[in-house]
Amino acid sequence: MLRTHTLGEISEKIIGQKVKLCGWIDTIREHGKVIFFDLRDRYGKVQCVIVKSNESFENIKKLGKESCIKIEGQVNQRPKGSENPDLASGRVEVFIDSVEVLGKASQLPFEIDEKDIGEEIRMKFKFLDLRTEKMQKNLAFRSEVARAVREYFLKNNFIEIETPLLVKPTPEGARDYIVPSRVNPGKFYALPQSPQLYKQILMISGFDRYFSLAKCLRDEDLRQDRQPEHTQIDFEMSFVDSEDIMNFVEDMYRYVFDKVLGVKLGKFPRLTYEESMKKYHTDKPDLRKDKNNKKEFAFCWIYDFPLFAYNQEEGRWEPEHHMFTSPQKKYVDDLEKEPGKVRGELFDVVLNGVELGSGSIRINDPDLQERIMKVVGMSKQEAKKKFGFLLEAYKYGGPVHGGMGLGFDRLVALMLGYNDIREVIAFPKNKAAQNPMDGSPSDIDKKHLKDVHVDVRITEKADKKTVKSKKKTRKR
Amino acid sequence: MLRTHTLGEISEKIIGQKVKLCGWIDTIREHGKVIFFDLRDRYGKVQCVIVKSNESFENIKKLGKESCIKIEGQVNQRPKGSENPDLASGRVEVFIDSVEVLGKASQLPFEIDEKDIGEEIRMKFKFLDLRTEKMQKNLAFRSEVARAVREYFLKNNFIEIETPLLVKPTPEGARDYIVPSRVNPGKFYALPQSPQLYKQILMISGFDRYFSLAKCLRDEDLRQDRQPEHTQIDFEMSFVDSEDIMNFVEDMYRYVFDKVLGVKLGKFPRLTYEESMKKYHTDKPDLRKDKNNKKEFAFCWIYDFPLFAYNQEEGRWEPEHHMFTSPQKKYVDDLEKEPGKVRGELFDVVLNGVELGSGSIRINDPDLQERIMKVVGMSKQEAKKKFGFLLEAYKYGGPVHGGMGLGFDRLVALMLGYNDIREVIAFPKNKAAQNPMDGSPSDIDKKHLKDVHVDVRITEKADKKTVKSKKKTRKR
Repeated sequence: MLRTHTLGEISEKIIGQKVKLCGWIDTIREHGKVIFFDLRDRYGKVQCVIVKSNESFENIKKLGKESCIKIEGQVNQRPKGSENPDLASGRVEVFIDSVEVLGKASQLPFEIDEKDIGEEIRMKFKFLDLRTEKMQKNLAFRSEVARAVREYFLKNNFIEIETPLLVKPTPEGARDYIVPSRVNPGKFYALPQSPQLYKQILMISGFDRYFSLAKCLRDEDLRQDRQPEHTQIDFEMSFVDSEDIMNFVEDMYRYVFDKVLGVKLGKFPRLTYEESMKKYHTDKPDLRKDKNNKKEFAFCWIYDFPLFAYNQEEGRWEPEHHMFTSPQKKYVDDLEKEPGKVRGELFDVVLNGVELGSGSIRINDPDLQERIMKVVGMSKQEAKKKFGFLLEAYKYGGPVHGGMGLGFDRLVALMLGYNDIREVIAFPKNKAAQNPMDGSPSDIDKKHLKDVHVDVRITEKADKKTVKSKKKTRKR
Repeated sequence: MLRTHTLGEISEKIIGQKVKLCGWIDTIREHGKVIFFDLRDRYGKVQCVIVKSNESFENIKKLGKESCIKIEGQVNQRPKGSENPDLASGRVEVFIDSVEVLGKASQLPFEIDEKDIGEEIRMKFKFLDLRTEKMQKNLAFRSEVARAVREYFLKNNFIEIETPLLVKPTPEGARDYIVPSRVNPGKFYALPQSPQLYKQILMISGFDRYFSLAKCLRDEDLRQDRQPEHTQIDFEMSFVDSEDIMNFVEDMYRYVFDKVLGVKLGKFPRLTYEESMKKYHTDKPDLRKDKNNKKEFAFCWIYDFPLFAYNQEEGRWEPEHHMFTSPQKKYVDDLEKEPGKVRGELFDVVLNGVELGSGSIRINDPDLQERIMKVVGMSKQEAKKKFGFLLEAYKYGGPVHGGMGLGFDRLVALMLGYNDIREVIAFPKNKAAQNPMDGSPSDIDKKHLKDVHVDVRITEKADKKTVKSKKKTRKR
């Protein structure tokens, strides 16, 4: 180890000890024959002192802020009156014996803690932005939330199963990202919009409790709470009803909020879709007493959603959630008669006016599935092409099952009081789906394109046109 | 809940109780006026009895094996002499009151436990293959290994950080999968071969301990231990040397083997590359006493690898590991003189003759990085294009750091005694990189291709030609 302590471990307890420390120069003040600087790492800050007689004095003088160094020295009590109560290490300082420069910093493009820095420049120099106290905390917090979520599922006998990233193009609302196959000329994989089909297959396979923190990719136009890729707490359970799933998820959030924030959540209010629309004119009501209070967490459930929504433009019924959502039993017999009246085994969880996710009991009866497809005007042939393998699988003994996909980025952001999920993502994309730091997406050489049997073909304004065809998509 | 107990909870302890159970019909025997069948779920098997007077008798008779049902009944002691010592529930049976069919099974394409079923048909009906005791165990085991790995990193103050899936095409050994951008016509993302560049950026960002179980995608030709996508235990640490990393990883494996298998691993032998080559004629020696013993786990470290390997074909030096591996200090001054003599801060961990992963201390000095690039004949321009953002980032205070990428699928497979990683993957691809179950990769409609500005272009035998250009790739 290059260091004996992290900077979070430097305090009065070790006064008099010789230490080796590593970190970044945070602030630096020269007082003639003495230089004071704060050394910073993930765990804290420590004031260091170097005197002119030290051979590294001139070296430190020349070093820019944010340079990475290693020092050896002794932990001393600070002179009376010079303590800094804002620092955990504020009663001590390190008197430097020697300095080793690990990585010099060039002239910075911006002061790291400056507030008025444009988003684009922060993204380009993401490695500097990530050094801010805010981003250090946010990502550590995200890791803690993931840890608590996993703990909860694992102690409830769920198995974490990895579903594939190279999949069959999916019949979901949004547009798939596609990947040309080299070995299968002219064929393409899709990147998963969610593990939906695969988790249903896992239930048919007898894994009655599956979960994963799944990467989901959707080629949509971006906005504040949308990224080309996001993470979803994805799970599915067999032999349960809607009520069971809602209770389970409620307990999960309760566990996570308590564990990570020390916040005890009460029982989540439950509103039917109709109640919510009547009372709040939205199916994502914000039930906080003070709508601006970012430390108030008001969850609720919305249930009894219609199974179908009427698409005026196309003059046809379409699934409100997705094709695989089960209608409530009492509507099954007559669902063709008045599709608009049919309610689904379908429920949303909402936090502070933001939908965290949708869940449902799925259709496990191939005959019922066919009837639903008819109502939304999907031919057998089309269904077979899109997700025939799933329909086929249900012919071999599918259990009753359901589950949810719960936005993870959104959850973490809301827990920290942010609206923008980019605050809790290490390397987000900008609104043009680019990463200004690595310059992706970028050109590919012709040979590579030839290897995977595609050619670039840019038609005039093609990009403008396609932007329109987006659809409302929901979590699952 | 549709059930009161899982089938693992049925035993003598609850004799006399009324229960509701769900599961699949495993075996079925008709004895005139009585039918016996085993009901199966993830947790166990239970013998059920239904008599002719029961109204569901005829229904059960007609049901195929692997149908999914729910029953209500009473747990009874089995008649003396009919106990089954092989089953945890072998002293009891459930006398059925009523049966509800949840999902009928059609004629099965194969008997689930039959051994001589071709790989391809098992993959096509993966949902049946996954019902076998073997696959149920394997995936649950994989989840337990992942859990133990995460526990170890988290208790050692590592932060789990998600790196992006849509990235800049990477300068690694294998071929990238590429994804056309819709919003940026003619531009492409790559899918990550590993989080290598991003974890180095995270170190520059001050996260001194990062890990993730990362999905890595490589467009290579497939073989037993290679899949288009695999999972890697990926981590990076700042302010450490090679020794620290090796000790840390050794402790990690020790923790995981103890936790999941109850196996206490001894100290891992360490061999220099030269020693290993001399003694075993390989850098992946199998140090088991009995090479066929799948329950013996012989780890070792190989270190002191050459930094460069000479590519005879192309007449030039290339990195043995990757461009970012640091040479050992004593070779730095003269590395241009005799590149073949330079040893790297580079080490491999090997288990039973299989390389689990490579690690190294990275170069954090931009000047040294430039010299290395010169030795391998990479121009500044090329370097800038390929990973300029990383070289740029090191100009702002990069710490000393290193890490490893450790094959996770391979680890799980070896722990269970398999050579083929497909035994521990829920939805693997076949050797043609296809998934026979979902039919991926598949055709994409023209409109979608147009949206993302590409065209299919199949040149004669294009696929044959490209197969050749593969290279030896190593883990990182």
